[in-house]
Amino acid sequence: MKFSCQGLELADAVLKVVKAAAVRTTNPILECVKMVAEDDRLTLTCTDLELTITKSINADVKVSGVAVIPAKFFADFVSKISGEQLEFNLHGKTLDVVYGDNSAFFQCQDATEFPEPKTLEQPEYVEIASEAFKDLVTKSSVAVAQDDSRPMLRGILLEVSSGQLRGVALDGVRLALVQKSTLSQSAEFGLVVSARCLLEIVRLLPDNDETIRICTQKNHLQINLGNTQLMTRLMGMQSDYVSYRQILPKDFTTTINVNRKHILDAMERAGLFSRVDRNFVVKFDITGREMVINSESELGNLTEHLQITHNGADLAIEFNGKLYNDALRVITDEFVQIRFGSAVHPCVIVPQEGDDYLYLILPMHKI
Amino acid sequence: MKFSCQGLELADAVLKVVKAAAVRTTNPILECVKMVAEDDRLTLTCTDLELTITKSINADVKVSGVAVIPAKFFADFVSKISGEQLEFNLHGKTLDVVYGDNSAFFQCQDATEFPEPKTLEQPEYVEIASEAFKDLVTKSSVAVAQDDSRPMLRGILLEVSSGQLRGVALDGVRLALVQKSTLSQSAEFGLVVSARCLLEIVRLLPDNDETIRICTQKNHLQINLGNTQLMTRLMGMQSDYVSYRQILPKDFTTTINVNRKHILDAMERAGLFSRVDRNFVVKFDITGREMVINSESELGNLTEHLQITHNGADLAIEFNGKLYNDALRVITDEFVQIRFGSAVHPCVIVPQEGDDYLYLILPMHKI
Repeated sequence: MKFSCQGLELADAVLKVVKAAAVRTTNPILECVKMVAEDDRLTLTCTDLELTITKSINADVKVSGVAVIPAKFFADFVSKISGEQLEFNLHGKTLDVVYGDNSAFFQCQDATEFPEPKTLEQPEYVEIASEAFKDLVTKSSVAVAQDDSRPMLRGILLEVSSGQLRGVALDGVRLALVQKSTLSQSAEFGLVVSARCLLEIVRLLPDNDETIRICTQKNHLQINLGNTQLMTRLMGMQSDYVSYRQILPKDFTTTINVNRKHILDAMERAGLFSRVDRNFVVKFDITGREMVINSESELGNLTEHLQITHNGADLAIEFNGKLYNDALRVITDEFVQIRFGSAVHPCVIVPQEGDDYLYLILPMHKI
Repeated sequence: MKFSCQGLELADAVLKVVKAAAVRTTNPILECVKMVAEDDRLTLTCTDLELTITKSINADVKVSGVAVIPAKFFADFVSKISGEQLEFNLHGKTLDVVYGDNSAFFQCQDATEFPEPKTLEQPEYVEIASEAFKDLVTKSSVAVAQDDSRPMLRGILLEVSSGQLRGVALDGVRLALVQKSTLSQSAEFGLVVSARCLLEIVRLLPDNDETIRICTQKNHLQINLGNTQLMTRLMGMQSDYVSYRQILPKDFTTTINVNRKHILDAMERAGLFSRVDRNFVVKFDITGREMVINSESELGNLTEHLQITHNGADLAIEFNGKLYNDALRVITDEFVQIRFGSAVHPCVIVPQEGDDYLYLILPMHKI
């Protein structure tokens, strides 16, 4: 293998693919980047078996070939010489690199041990605007379980039906449901994808309304994005996930509309007090056109008054305030609607109009 | 106690003084802020007994008084209501605060338990430009010991003599000596101040050539800065510190001049390789008008060639590369001069002209 390429382009590519490299594993090959030089392209791949990122850049390839070297180490190196033209040359088990008057070499791993990439043939797919998909993943991920007691809840359910892509996450005390219109789809399907991988993937997507095609086949999900390919192994299918529809409450006795920024600011101040004793209890008192937020602790108490519009019964109810703040922080609407059943039934936070998102939050029960 | 003040001004002041509050201590009063309302001023003080920061702001004081409440908790609170006008009212053991329609109260600690501030009468002093003092502390602090085996080496020696303020730090394998012209001084003196406190203090100093007066008396050092007062307890006097002058080498056999940015870039790349095996060894080979930097590891090797001007003998010498990088990162000159004795004698990094700084670094000995 012998090729040359631009340091800046290489650094950008390595820093992207290295996100999929394993960290501290018993299988060191998964901490490596595979470099394939062929047809005036250099293709870089990292995988931790769960997530695979591949990216190719222009290269002046004199001799085709493959080299596998430690990814993080190489990423650190190329990010420090990005201004230069780099010449690579594989000599047996060492990959030499010459830049300006200087040189380095890297010990290579056995390229045959690097996992073979999966290829999808005639996969199912859904097409959606890049920005919409980013928003869906970001907004639904707040309800993903943070512990491993039920591994499937570390994933996000992606459900394609009726011209909509829905992202669903839940963790036992809350649920997030976010839906976006699709641009096209080959079929209706539902699958569960690791939230960690999806968040890593959306970080690499462009911030615009460019269409992305999400493909799935044989237990894998893949997004092709120009010279970058993102692939992740599915955690399961829709049938493996919680039947979330039966959890969604239908009947409400109290509905309020409130300025999102105002309630978030008040809840964040309340959170300072509620976290002191580590119980995170924040109390809502809804009467007439006012909602009183109260939080108590051994260091002091806080009482905030919010103006609301209000339909239905008065209500006093207690929540873990953190669950509210997580949802209110990712919503961008000026106003939100909150619907309550009773002091022991879940509430939902929804838009004033439409059904783009729904956050369900269980109240805290008085013992 | 009853007063009102601007939230923004209060938040700024609390966030400054809270830097001196103790974190996780057995004496909870040291985690508090003392608020004194008097003569249309509110004065805030935090101290961990080592560092004391006091700041006063305008307040509309109706009833004078004192309250002591948890500092970090209060800082988090006021930083979230900085836009508002705040009204405070002390009722027995609780401090009420009203902002807009909302209110909170804080449980107060016993104000008599808060440590009394020291006052210096007719102290010795030195005057110096704020920026020069910041630079002196930043540049000398890189050689401060990171472990507690010799507590005095966690300090910086500040030495006033011959119209110069010198900052000296050393840790057993390196020494930093930085000197700046003073504007005036009451006497010649030398004292040792905790590097942690000095770094905290210089963060609060303005970035300009405003004159600051550093006062010392009765085991304390104090800087008055408008409405802010910074005070720290001395770790010792010059006589308690290492007699550093006898460590400074006088005779050199090899002197080079090199572009600081070029050698730093090369050393940072070398550092990627040298840290792999955690020995940090970087080798210099100085011959003619070239210096070759070499670093080896089990993952690969690196060789860099630097252009230098060179007086004296050729030399091969090995260093812990990290010590070089720490010094080269804080120097801002375009070129530096490095003077070597032999492969087993310390080298020094100095400016090409003048004597503003000197970094002494011990070589690594081959066994």
